Amino acid sequence: MTTTVRTPAETVGTLGERALIARIRERLAPPPAWLLVGPVDDAAIVARERNAYDVITTDACVEGIHFDRGFVPPKAIGHRAVAANLSDLAAMGAQPRLILLSLILPPALSLAEFDDVIEGVLEACGRHRVTVAGGNITRSPGPLIVDITALGTVRPRRQLLRTGARPGDLVFVTGSLGGARAGLQMCEFGAESVGTDSASPKGRYLWPEPRIRTGLQLGRQQAATACMDLSDGLADGVRQLAQASGVGMEIDADALPIDANTRQWFEGRGKDAILEAALGGDDYELLFTAAPRRQGRLRSVQRTTKTVTFTRIGVVTGDKATVLVRGSRRDPMPEGFQHFLGEP
Amino acid sequence: MTTTVRTPAETVGTLGERALIARIRERLAPPPAWLLVGPVDDAAIVARERNAYDVITTDACVEGIHFDRGFVPPKAIGHRAVAANLSDLAAMGAQPRLILLSLILPPALSLAEFDDVIEGVLEACGRHRVTVAGGNITRSPGPLIVDITALGTVRPRRQLLRTGARPGDLVFVTGSLGGARAGLQMCEFGAESVGTDSASPKGRYLWPEPRIRTGLQLGRQQAATACMDLSDGLADGVRQLAQASGVGMEIDADALPIDANTRQWFEGRGKDAILEAALGGDDYELLFTAAPRRQGRLRSVQRTTKTVTFTRIGVVTGDKATVLVRGSRRDPMPEGFQHFLGEP
Repeated sequence: MTTTVRTPAETVGTLGERALIARIRERLAPPPAWLLVGPVDDAAIVARERNAYDVITTDACVEGIHFDRGFVPPKAIGHRAVAANLSDLAAMGAQPRLILLSLILPPALSLAEFDDVIEGVLEACGRHRVTVAGGNITRSPGPLIVDITALGTVRPRRQLLRTGARPGDLVFVTGSLGGARAGLQMCEFGAESVGTDSASPKGRYLWPEPRIRTGLQLGRQQAATACMDLSDGLADGVRQLAQASGVGMEIDADALPIDANTRQWFEGRGKDAILEAALGGDDYELLFTAAPRRQGRLRSVQRTTKTVTFTRIGVVTGDKATVLVRGSRRDPMPEGFQHFLGEP
Repeated sequence: MTTTVRTPAETVGTLGERALIARIRERLAPPPAWLLVGPVDDAAIVARERNAYDVITTDACVEGIHFDRGFVPPKAIGHRAVAANLSDLAAMGAQPRLILLSLILPPALSLAEFDDVIEGVLEACGRHRVTVAGGNITRSPGPLIVDITALGTVRPRRQLLRTGARPGDLVFVTGSLGGARAGLQMCEFGAESVGTDSASPKGRYLWPEPRIRTGLQLGRQQAATACMDLSDGLADGVRQLAQASGVGMEIDADALPIDANTRQWFEGRGKDAILEAALGGDDYELLFTAAPRRQGRLRSVQRTTKTVTFTRIGVVTGDKATVLVRGSRRDPMPEGFQHFLGEP
């Protein structure tokens, strides 16, 4: 936390770009030894771990598209932007090391909000021992944007890809589904939260936790044949994983892990909880496949990631269809979310 | 070039996110062997060069802030975004390897413009053998934004930092100054260009060339004591380099390399060409310092980067003042550009 005294009227527009950068820098933890040049030069210089590959990803959070400043607190904006990126590394079995933070800021953003966005970023990074190694700050003519690049490492033959699912493999998902979608709806409708902890639907939406440890262990123990994260929902994930691996999947609708508060929210509004959970994005759970004969390894992974449950939700098939099985009904897996689709 | 048939009315909003990604992917060159997993998974996996550090940087180009779509063609938008990032790597003496391309797109952007932005990105990358290893596409509620992260490598003890300038070192700049500022003004005022080649002022603004080869050679031959790029202009650069090294600098105004077309443009509008050139951003030249006894190394660097001139513009001093010397006048170096400063 910065101790700088400020008045409520101050905005980022009253400070220079470098003063804002200095404001972030003074809050950074001391850099690790491998960060040879940190956020003080044209670029950061990073010494590498031996015998490891770089894993790199980028993901932007855009006001009006990914979040509404009306109900997402600034700290959660920062948290969610980090989580979305670290979740992509988790899906590869990678250990995150650093992020670059590209901020595109409306000049009218208050310094208090700015500080809270940064606090959300730094807390999320701190929890996973991730270093802010650099970034960029520029003015926005409109939306607030937090665009992050995350760099991690993975050892050879320990990476998790989307391409390895084989017919007969079992399909698993971590944690529970649909919570973030229910939480977003609760925020939008101004509903009282059932709980404010991170396991409540609102908590799932505002404070998602990337499954880094699970991804790492699945990779290290070579327990999964394919893996991805569910940023755009299960329906999208099943289709993408199946397509990347050139296989099909049958998902058992009744097996989907949906927590009681989430189910109650959807059903109380006359919705099909299973479909909502399958379509809901932002859960940042992992979807993965595993060979039946390697379930011993899965149990071993679960022992090291105790609080994260694994639920078996289906099976990989040899045809290329993705099917949602509900009792005697077999429907095609619904289409997931895509940016742009169907817009003018 | 894609051969997809399109009608003029098509916009990015009519295609899905994945269709846009596929549209980029079909235009990518075959990936190099070190790109183990390319833009088809949650993140890219990169095998490392032996005995080298990672160098990583990010820079965003925002419509309405960094460019005006009224006069910057879409292809130049893509080119400039790549150049700004590669220039940061050049300033570190790094060899660029890959970029991640984060696109934030208004749905009304035409597919023709989208294709041209991508062409600008790919051409700029191709010229420097840089791979597009991944990225992200999302919708924008307002401006078009091209936010790029660039990853390169540098060998130990071959990096160029901002911190090494020592009193008595000579100060150099590559190429010429102020051209991009004059070119931007020509675009804004709708002036006929004096030339359309990359050396003309408009060319300097629209099609900047990062000094990658020069940065690499300065680093490899350990010819420079400190270095940075001039994205925000010479005045800003001199202040930043001096501050990072804990020294002062005296810059000889009459020594600044300003080409004839640029000088003529400024003087024709009653401006002080030297001040304009010192304040002008977007030149992407390198500012560096060198020990006087190492001028032999500098000459050796120049032999390998023939078309890029080096001009000696001043000297590093022991006090911490940055001074612009003009005949008998000694003025403090003017303040350079900063985002936000002085805005409401």
